[in-house]
This record gives sequence, C-alpha cells and structure tokens, in this order.
Amino acid sequence: MAPAVAYAPAGSSFIPELILTDTTVSPATVANPYFLDCDTGIDDSLALAYLLASEKVNLVGIGTVAGNTSAEQGARNSLDLLALVGRSEVPVAVGATGPQSGEFDGGVPHIHGDNGVGNVELPVSSLRPVAEPAAEMLVRLAHEYAGELRIVAIGPLTNIAAALRLEPRLPRLVKELTLMGGAAMVPGNISEVAEANVGNDADAASEVFAADWFITMVPLDVTLTNTFEESDRDALLASGRPMPQTLGRILDLYYDFYIATYGRRACALHDPLAAAIAVGDIPLRVAPVVNVMVDATDGPGRGQTICDLRGYLNGYPQQPGAHCRVVLELEENFAPTLLAQLLRA
Amino acid sequence: MAPAVAYAPAGSSFIPELILTDTTVSPATVANPYFLDCDTGIDDSLALAYLLASEKVNLVGIGTVAGNTSAEQGARNSLDLLALVGRSEVPVAVGATGPQSGEFDGGVPHIHGDNGVGNVELPVSSLRPVAEPAAEMLVRLAHEYAGELRIVAIGPLTNIAAALRLEPRLPRLVKELTLMGGAAMVPGNISEVAEANVGNDADAASEVFAADWFITMVPLDVTLTNTFEESDRDALLASGRPMPQTLGRILDLYYDFYIATYGRRACALHDPLAAAIAVGDIPLRVAPVVNVMVDATDGPGRGQTICDLRGYLNGYPQQPGAHCRVVLELEENFAPTLLAQLLRA
Repeated sequence: MAPAVAYAPAGSSFIPELILTDTTVSPATVANPYFLDCDTGIDDSLALAYLLASEKVNLVGIGTVAGNTSAEQGARNSLDLLALVGRSEVPVAVGATGPQSGEFDGGVPHIHGDNGVGNVELPVSSLRPVAEPAAEMLVRLAHEYAGELRIVAIGPLTNIAAALRLEPRLPRLVKELTLMGGAAMVPGNISEVAEANVGNDADAASEVFAADWFITMVPLDVTLTNTFEESDRDALLASGRPMPQTLGRILDLYYDFYIATYGRRACALHDPLAAAIAVGDIPLRVAPVVNVMVDATDGPGRGQTICDLRGYLNGYPQQPGAHCRVVLELEENFAPTLLAQLLRA
Repeated sequence: MAPAVAYAPAGSSFIPELILTDTTVSPATVANPYFLDCDTGIDDSLALAYLLASEKVNLVGIGTVAGNTSAEQGARNSLDLLALVGRSEVPVAVGATGPQSGEFDGGVPHIHGDNGVGNVELPVSSLRPVAEPAAEMLVRLAHEYAGELRIVAIGPLTNIAAALRLEPRLPRLVKELTLMGGAAMVPGNISEVAEANVGNDADAASEVFAADWFITMVPLDVTLTNTFEESDRDALLASGRPMPQTLGRILDLYYDFYIATYGRRACALHDPLAAAIAVGDIPLRVAPVVNVMVDATDGPGRGQTICDLRGYLNGYPQQPGAHCRVVLELEENFAPTLLAQLLRA
C-alpha cells in the first residue's frame, strides 16, 4: 500500500511539513481545486476571468511569474481583477522574478502594455499578495488537496519547476497539469521554433516536461488559430458588467499587435484556451499523447518543444511512457464558448 | 560591373582554373545542364529515371554520397541504371564516403535493401565511375556551365559542402540548387525533427544552407504526402520496358517499409519530387522564400531545418536576404506526372 499523505487543513496559514503516514485522511472538502500560475497579461486576464466564471472551478490559489510583465505587476493585475468581481478570498502569491538562468527581459510592453493589461488603469484594490512565494504556495496546496489539485500554467514554467525542486513528489500529488505553451507542428512566436512561455525559461520548461505527471500542452497550433474578432470585443464592451467591459478595453492594444499576424485587428486566444481545456469544456479532435522534450541547448532550437509526432500520418501509434497530451485540433471554434463565459464573469 | 567568369569549354578533360576577367565569353553549348548528387537508393533511382526521361534535362554529371547506401554502391547502382537505358555517356563520380564529422552509419538496408535498390539484382554493366571525386566534378562542371548548371541534391549534402570549400564562388556559378531534404511544418524521419538527408550530415547541410545561392528545398511536408500506390507499381511492372519494370521491382521492399508510416503498402516520393520540381514540371501552391538554417548543435534539435515560417497566417511577408524557397504545398498530386514520366524512361 502506498503511504497516504497528511497535510494541513485548507486555509491554514503555515507551510505544512509533508508527513508520510499510513493513516488515511479525508480529502479537502473543496471540490475541483485549481491553482493558476500566470504572468497577467492580457490573455492571462481572459483566462483568469474564465476560471472565476466557471461553476466547475474552485480557484484556491494564484501564483505569478515574470513573463508578459513582471511577477509583481502580474500579481497587482490579478488582485485588481479579483477585486473587480469581489473575489478577494483567492490568495495571490508572487513567484519567480526572472528565469532560472539569465535575467528577466522586462516583458513585452508592445504586446501587453506597460502595465501588462494594455495600459488600461484598473481600479486599484486594497488587496495585497500573500507573503508566501508562489512555488511554496503551490507545494502547500498540492498537499492540502492531494490527488485533487489541477494546475493551469499560462506563463513561463519557472514557478512550477521551482515547486518540483521543493517537492519532488509533486507529480504524484497533483491531479493534472495543463499548460499554455510550445509549438508542435507550427512555428514559434519568439523564435522560428520557440513559443514565449516555454522559450522564456527553457531550463524550467525542460524540467517540467521531464517530470512524471500527466501534462496537457496547449500549443500555438490551436491558440493562434482560435481568435477573438472585433465583434467579440464589441460584445464584451456592451455587456454592462465590470469584468467583461474591462476585458474589452484591455484587448484594444492586443488587437493592434496581432495585425502583423493576421492582417486584421483580432487576437489569439492562448491562455483562455488552456484554461477552458483544463476545465474540460472543450472537446479535442486531435490530441495525441506523445513524448515531448524541450530544447534547452544554447543553439538555434532553444526553447522548442520537441514533440514526437512522427505518427501523424498513421493515427499516432501509442508511445510507451509518453505522458504529454498535445492539443493539435479542437472539435469546434473556441471563441463562442469563451465569449459566453466571459459575459457571465 | 561584376567580372565575368572564364571557363574551359564543355567536354574538356581537365579541371580549369577559375579566371576572373572582364572578357565576356559565350556559354557552353549544352542547354539545361543538370548535376545530380545522390545516394542511390530506391527513390533516388526514380529521380534518376525521371531526369533521364526528361527532354528538358541534360544530365552532365552524377556524384554519389554515403546515405541510403555507401557512395560506392550508390555509384554502382547509378551506373547500372544508366546502362539499362543506354546512357553510358553520363559520368558518375564517387563522392564522400561518410559525413564531415563522425562515421557513415552503414545506410538503411531495412528501407533500401542491402544493395540500395531493394535487393533487386540489376544487370551489372561494364561502366565504371570516373576517377574524379564528386565534389571536384561538380566544381569543374559549374565552371564549364557557368551560370547554367542546376544542381539536384537528393542525398546528404556532404559533396555539395565539399564543393563549396573547394570553390567558394560556387554559388555565383550555379544557376540553382534544388534539394530533397528537411522538414518544415511536419516531424522529421530520423528524429522528432530531423529529416535523413539533412540529419545524416547536419554540418554539411548547415554550410550549404548558409551559402548565398538560391535553394529550393523540397521537404518531408510534400514528399511524404505524395505517394505511389500498388496501382502505380503495377503499371510500372506491366510496362514492358526495362527501366520502369526494374523500378517496379525495386519498389517492392520500399512499399513494405512504408506500412509503418501509412498503414498500407505504398511509398513516399521524396527524391523524384525534388527532381521534378528542379525541372520545373510541378506547379507549387505554397512555397515561401524564407530564412532557413540547420541546427548543427549536438542537442535534441540536431539536423532540423529551422525555417522562419512565422508568417504562415499572413501570406509569408517578404524576408530581406532570404534565399531558400521552401515547398509546402503542390497544386496537384505528383504521382500521375511521375508515373507518366517513368513509363517513358
């Protein structure tokens, strides 16, 4: 019999020790606990709103990481968005302020604005981040909700890799990891082959993909081909509700950036698609479970998610030991589902 | 004014010195000269037959390189195929017996047979390779047919890289280089990301792609999705002509190998498609001119052709300095064109 895991009760304020014991303990009482790791971020804001609006999700913690913007700014944005919908009970923990090696590049203000949310000034709430660092919070929650916690990771994987080092048993404690990142059969977006979340901390990503847990990878293959258009933004702005109206406003800058990609004002739905897939709202048409590794060399392939998709002409035969589901095609366009959810947010 | 290039007349038996001069000299008299660099090989045999059957092609030389089989065996196969159709005038030069660094791996007998041509015994001709090494022959022919010579490279690029080192001005002397190799938006076939011709000598390929000439790259994206089926093989076998009948026989083993890829007996049309595109017989639907480099690191991406296809959602905007056309889609299925040509061979 595998030893059960004892953990501090949900809501306790200290970081519990992991105690291996034969005592069977009852699981935490909150159903469907989710941990969101993010770099908020315009599309992160959509993902956060999506999760907050879902009846299937109990968001028990948020960690932030340097990526689209700084970890501190990402936390500020997350808190202000939580406050906008009266969800002050969700704790936000600041995480890694830069990648495992090298320096944080300052984010991408031309995409996400100087403040990460499209230069829109959110109403500043009195909420503050918790003192606990994001990786420690994740480890604690993984124990509290052992076997139940789902991670949705939509920024660089620095915090997740740090949590793996803090608690090597994390893969056994966590139910599932869904991440927005990588590019499988399409080009990257920060290099010819590297997608931003993976490429901005290839070392961390390499560790996360190598760990023995079930990963659902939501890559550019599907996040770039599912878009919000002007009509979607108009619907958000016309909603009369604080969250969708705010999201509509912050999307403005993002739409400008994507003119270079699509030839029109629109945007990719990177992070919210990962959130929706993590919740199980999106039927997947093609999503083979295959071996994936990250190129962590200093060569031209650095940051690439190398997925073994050589079975693509033959139904992707099973690969022993593979534990990463790579989402390559959805059953339907994601935008209507997303819009409906955000209008409820 | 750029200096003209003087060269020895076509058919001269010595290796000319390149002489830079302002004297304008008349081009060699043979129209449409082609040099084929190959590792014959089953699909190489189809490519050779394709070129021999074309009225638009004057095959002025063949070089062989270690790849599907040894360079020596590739030369033997090429000579025996030439003899089969009475084309003994085409000189065959043995080239590199292994990659620039490392050792030749012995080829792929499970794909191409122990002898490179599907274990079919070709009638052994009395033809012999020329004494000149393949790279030197290529440099000589590039001078003889300055500005006119087209290279079709369907094996590892070891000979082509060697010729570049022998004659750094080769890119200015050659009209065009068409190569079968690489994988752009699809997986590789010898690793997750590396295609065999490029991956079997990534160092050589890296030099060839970096040189300043116009390259047409015919990657797995199109060579794997264009196939010969049993009906095509039956038609070759029923032709009553030595070359197509022989090709039909050697395809037998190749069809077996591809069951793992397609779930049926069939074969990819790698090398003959590159030959047909080099001749200009195949209209291309999607073939952007983009920057391409080869991953020559020792990491997991080694041998990948890293193509900058980030403009794929927006019509591939022009990239200054790009000189590689990457064939991603054809206007029509290649098999009927190939079959008709081979039945004439």
